[in-house]
Amino acid sequence: MPAEFKIRHAVQFVETDMAGIVHFSNFFRWMEACETAFYRSLKLPLMSFNPGKVVGWPRVNVSCEYRAPFRYGDTVEVRLLVKEVRTRAVVYVFQFRRIVRGRPAALVAARGEITAVCVQDDPASGRMVAAPIPAAVRAKLQVAPAKAWAR
Amino acid sequence: MPAEFKIRHAVQFVETDMAGIVHFSNFFRWMEACETAFYRSLKLPLMSFNPGKVVGWPRVNVSCEYRAPFRYGDTVEVRLLVKEVRTRAVVYVFQFRRIVRGRPAALVAARGEITAVCVQDDPASGRMVAAPIPAAVRAKLQVAPAKAWAR
Amino acid sequence: MPAEFKIRHAVQFVETDMAGIVHFSNFFRWMEACETAFYRSLKLPLMSFNPGKVVGWPRVNVSCEYRAPFRYGDTVEVRLLVKEVRTRAVVYVFQFRRIVRGRPAALVAARGEITAVCVQDDPASGRMVAAPIPAAVRAKLQVAPAKAWAR
Amino acid sequence: MPAEFKIRHAVQFVETDMAGIVHFSNFFRWMEACETAFYRSLKLPLMSFNPGKVVGWPRVNVSCEYRAPFRYGDTVEVRLLVKEVRTRAVVYVFQFRRIVRGRPAALVAARGEITAVCVQDDPASGRMVAAPIPAAVRAKLQVAPAKAWAR
Repeated sequence: MPAEFKIRHAVQFVETDMAGIVHFSNFFRWMEACETAFYRSLKLPLMSFNPGKVVGWPRVNVSCEYRAPFRYGDTVEVRLLVKEVRTRAVVYVFQFRRIVRGRPAALVAARGEITAVCVQDDPASGRMVAAPIPAAVRAKLQVAPAKAWAR
Repeated sequence: MPAEFKIRHAVQFVETDMAGIVHFSNFFRWMEACETAFYRSLKLPLMSFNPGKVVGWPRVNVSCEYRAPFRYGDTVEVRLLVKEVRTRAVVYVFQFRRIVRGRPAALVAARGEITAVCVQDDPASGRMVAAPIPAAVRAKLQVAPAKAWAR
Repeated sequence: MPAEFKIRHAVQFVETDMAGIVHFSNFFRWMEACETAFYRSLKLPLMSFNPGKVVGWPRVNVSCEYRAPFRYGDTVEVRLLVKEVRTRAVVYVFQFRRIVRGRPAALVAARGEITAVCVQDDPASGRMVAAPIPAAVRAKLQVAPAKAWAR
Repeated sequence: MPAEFKIRHAVQFVETDMAGIVHFSNFFRWMEACETAFYRSLKLPLMSFNPGKVVGWPRVNVSCEYRAPFRYGDTVEVRLLVKEVRTRAVVYVFQFRRIVRGRPAALVAARGEITAVCVQDDPASGRMVAAPIPAAVRAKLQVAPAKAWAR
């Protein structure tokens, strides 16, 4: 029952802008890449298309705070922490650190947050509606201690 | 002295994902497109490279709240509102509405916020440092009334 | 029965890279944006999801040749020319020119090409298969003269 | 003196489009990611900013041929092959294969090509001009046999 997960990402040339640093919008792509790898590690699909029972996690709220820039050549550690598990939603915190000599720097260079709502296919209306998180998913999510994500 | 500005954007195919809706990360590209057009309308560069005096607006905080999805074929109105002008920073609110029969729908389908800090080239250190917003820029920014952006 | 179409696009900050110019991958987004606007002008959907009869245009071959860079602040004219209409495919050429004092420069700064195949839903197999271009679409596509696209 | 290099990439949600497959433009991002990792493995910077001697590799020609789609959940092998080393340019071929049970499938699902020109800072004009590939770089590039990339 993991409460956190991390990946490493080498900054790509296309992710930089003319100011010479990573464009701020890419941090959201990295958060989702980490979330995808987290679900893969849990053997859970981030989105499933079982006939008659689509399950997905649309985002209702996202944010990011930037403290220090990343540059081409940097390797970034993206750390996901489960902040909160509600009946129909999960809140993740993401911490971004630069890898220096093989290890993540102490400084959290950026900090993101995503609130994702669990939706399922409603056979009656043919629409996606918010639904309780399936028990199999819930069983695999553990909330991280506040001291881990409150930075 | 404008306090708001708006653009229209036709949803692109590449902006959709396999869930059939616009991927959440694109809203940040749209906010910046609106900000760029706003500065262009003011005859101000969003980023200037005058020798010895680079001025830019790195983001320190961004967020977005999603209430209804956009789909391929939709045209979106992106409305920028100046929420706050500080000595060294500006806070913008962005409202996203779907265009229906030529006019923006009443529903704000998404709402974003960007805090951008004014930075200038510091000849002494050779680095970018936070700096007071140039008077020429400040003179052109007016804060919108709270009732306009508080939605 | 148009053989060509054009749009204008203001270069976005996110489209630049640390070399200070537009990243080459964005030209393919611009080609598709022009194709989308072209189909919209013809009152044809680029992709349609009529139940039991999905029609789409996956790409089988794309290319781009770069002769001069674009920068932030530039406005680009993207011109689509219909090069070839086959039974099951269309070939488009795209020419990119910088707008100088309100008009496209003589220089073609980049030149792209897309071969798109018409596919339809095959009820028997449940898969997308190459299919003859619907008559309603074909009737609206005219091939441009070689002297127009051979640059 | 390597003539080829490969990376693996897990398809990201943001890379899919409403047709449920990876959008064609992403293959160019993957090519560049592979090229970046190749140069990193050679201990060569893909772009260097040594004062007074910037070296970069702008693209003059790129293309991609698509034979089979990739989907979310797929892992892709991107294989770079050095097709040609000219005085001032390098031509790479890229082969994309799906990983099945830990190994690349026989089918080349897509095939790309990039021609990159070596440029250097010209102190006289202050512009980037095509220049002979530095000896240190050239010494590390070996051309792959035609039978490897001619697929």
